[in-house]
Amino acid sequence: MLDYWNEYPKIQENLIQVKKLISQRLVINNKSIEEAITKFSSTGGKMIRPALFFLFADFGNKKDQEQLVKIAASLELLHSATLVHDDIIDDSPTRRGMPSIQSRFGKDVAVYTGDFMYTSYFELLAECMSQTPFLLKNAQSMKKVLQGELTQMAGTFNPDQTIKDYLRNINGKTAELIRLSCHEGAYFGGADEKLQSRAKRIGSAIGLAFQVYDDILNFSLELGNEQKPILTDVQQGIFTLPLLIARDEQPVIIRPYLEKPETLSQQELIQLALYVDKFGGIAGALKFAENLTQKALTEIQELPEGKSKEILKKVATQLLERSY
Amino acid sequence: MLDYWNEYPKIQENLIQVKKLISQRLVINNKSIEEAITKFSSTGGKMIRPALFFLFADFGNKKDQEQLVKIAASLELLHSATLVHDDIIDDSPTRRGMPSIQSRFGKDVAVYTGDFMYTSYFELLAECMSQTPFLLKNAQSMKKVLQGELTQMAGTFNPDQTIKDYLRNINGKTAELIRLSCHEGAYFGGADEKLQSRAKRIGSAIGLAFQVYDDILNFSLELGNEQKPILTDVQQGIFTLPLLIARDEQPVIIRPYLEKPETLSQQELIQLALYVDKFGGIAGALKFAENLTQKALTEIQELPEGKSKEILKKVATQLLERSY
Repeated sequence: MLDYWNEYPKIQENLIQVKKLISQRLVINNKSIEEAITKFSSTGGKMIRPALFFLFADFGNKKDQEQLVKIAASLELLHSATLVHDDIIDDSPTRRGMPSIQSRFGKDVAVYTGDFMYTSYFELLAECMSQTPFLLKNAQSMKKVLQGELTQMAGTFNPDQTIKDYLRNINGKTAELIRLSCHEGAYFGGADEKLQSRAKRIGSAIGLAFQVYDDILNFSLELGNEQKPILTDVQQGIFTLPLLIARDEQPVIIRPYLEKPETLSQQELIQLALYVDKFGGIAGALKFAENLTQKALTEIQELPEGKSKEILKKVATQLLERSY
Repeated sequence: MLDYWNEYPKIQENLIQVKKLISQRLVINNKSIEEAITKFSSTGGKMIRPALFFLFADFGNKKDQEQLVKIAASLELLHSATLVHDDIIDDSPTRRGMPSIQSRFGKDVAVYTGDFMYTSYFELLAECMSQTPFLLKNAQSMKKVLQGELTQMAGTFNPDQTIKDYLRNINGKTAELIRLSCHEGAYFGGADEKLQSRAKRIGSAIGLAFQVYDDILNFSLELGNEQKPILTDVQQGIFTLPLLIARDEQPVIIRPYLEKPETLSQQELIQLALYVDKFGGIAGALKFAENLTQKALTEIQELPEGKSKEILKKVATQLLERSY
């Protein structure tokens, strides 16, 4: 998936170095697990977090390439660890087009594999940022991510969940790490404090918008078919923005669906998706995400001119047009 | 279980402070989960790791009580996190006489709860040891623990596992953290390097011996009865020292039991336990553990005179007499 960065050879080259470092770090005494986790954490996604990190690092004048690669790798490793653990929880058969660690090796290996990735992440931080405030910031970020996950967990199947609850959860579970990636890029690249704050705000907006777009996609009927389950979030008791907007608009019609969502038939799920659209849930969520995207673009506009600014503009727009 | 320390009020007082700090750190936005994890990580065990830490801290002359309490808490939190994740893997219904996190709240909450504890551990380290070599040492220790767990996982159901494999695994999964507790105690208490090295060796010996005794207990027929499963390790494909010694002694008789251990009947398991005893597996493992205990006591004898030395002697003997 690094093909995504074909047009940006400098970023691509940096990400290849990150991949290489990750493989070197994930060494364990079992070749098949080692291969699976290395593949998983280095070939799967677009590596958005390290890419944002390098883009923001470009606005500074301090360049310690070895340190930058380590920090970028730490961000991807932390993200990968959360994915491995998420797959246990969702019983996901696949991830990034490959069998998930847990479906291939069992949940036992998956639990420890995720833990092992957390550890490698922690080791990288200990090596390269112990003298900076970002060691503690990382611990606090990781705590926020997990508080977001736990609070979302605890709130599943709650038909009275508020939009505020939803926003707080996604601010933790998704936006926090993207915000940290941008902030660390600016800091470790040597940008000034004003630019660091801007990087954080851009990261927040991109992170939140990304999650909202992703949640909207889950209501798309085109993506579901008879073979494929639809509205999987709803069935798992995870009530996201489109649904919450529709519920607040027409509680009498929508709320009954949220009482026992795991028992809804295919027919009822389709009806619910149509209602969510009809009562403005999709439009409202889209509007919300577009505002965030606009906010990110306005802030990006204020960055110093240059290649990185242009790439950030393109990437923010593309990423937020459709989920990945 | 802090009653165990009734005779040692100073240690008990320190451990109460550790419990308090842990409760303060494990704050999440859900009261029932928060209560369960706080209870779990502060009321359950004997808190052996923080206790060993404080005992060794006593041999130095540098006393920053706040820092010591934080580090002791980090050791207990790391241990608790591994227990929460172990219970997912074993599907354990109980832990420390209470329902396990996963049986009470489900594996989803248990995965994130363990992760959340790791994070709180990491946060404590970031706060109080970022200027010392122990930040990196902690990351490396945690990596060893997980490599031990993963290697053991990968080696389950392997009838040709060697005694060397077994020792390497328990050196990682159990001894590492106990060794770290003793080493950190000596270092952060301000003891000299010679005493730090001794603390490490004592921790290694105690940690290994403890695990071997624990593994021997799993072969005790008295502990099993018709209601309670026996030889649970064997049934899960975990082949420990008593079994490996007996297999090496009488491969023709023992090895067939290791081919499909999950299919063995109650009768066959009892027969296997009797064989392991008959062919010297229990005696051999006991001898091995006793040698380690003796090694620990000989090293403890070399420590400076004082209350801590006396307590260490008693504790090492008691702990290693029977598992806990």
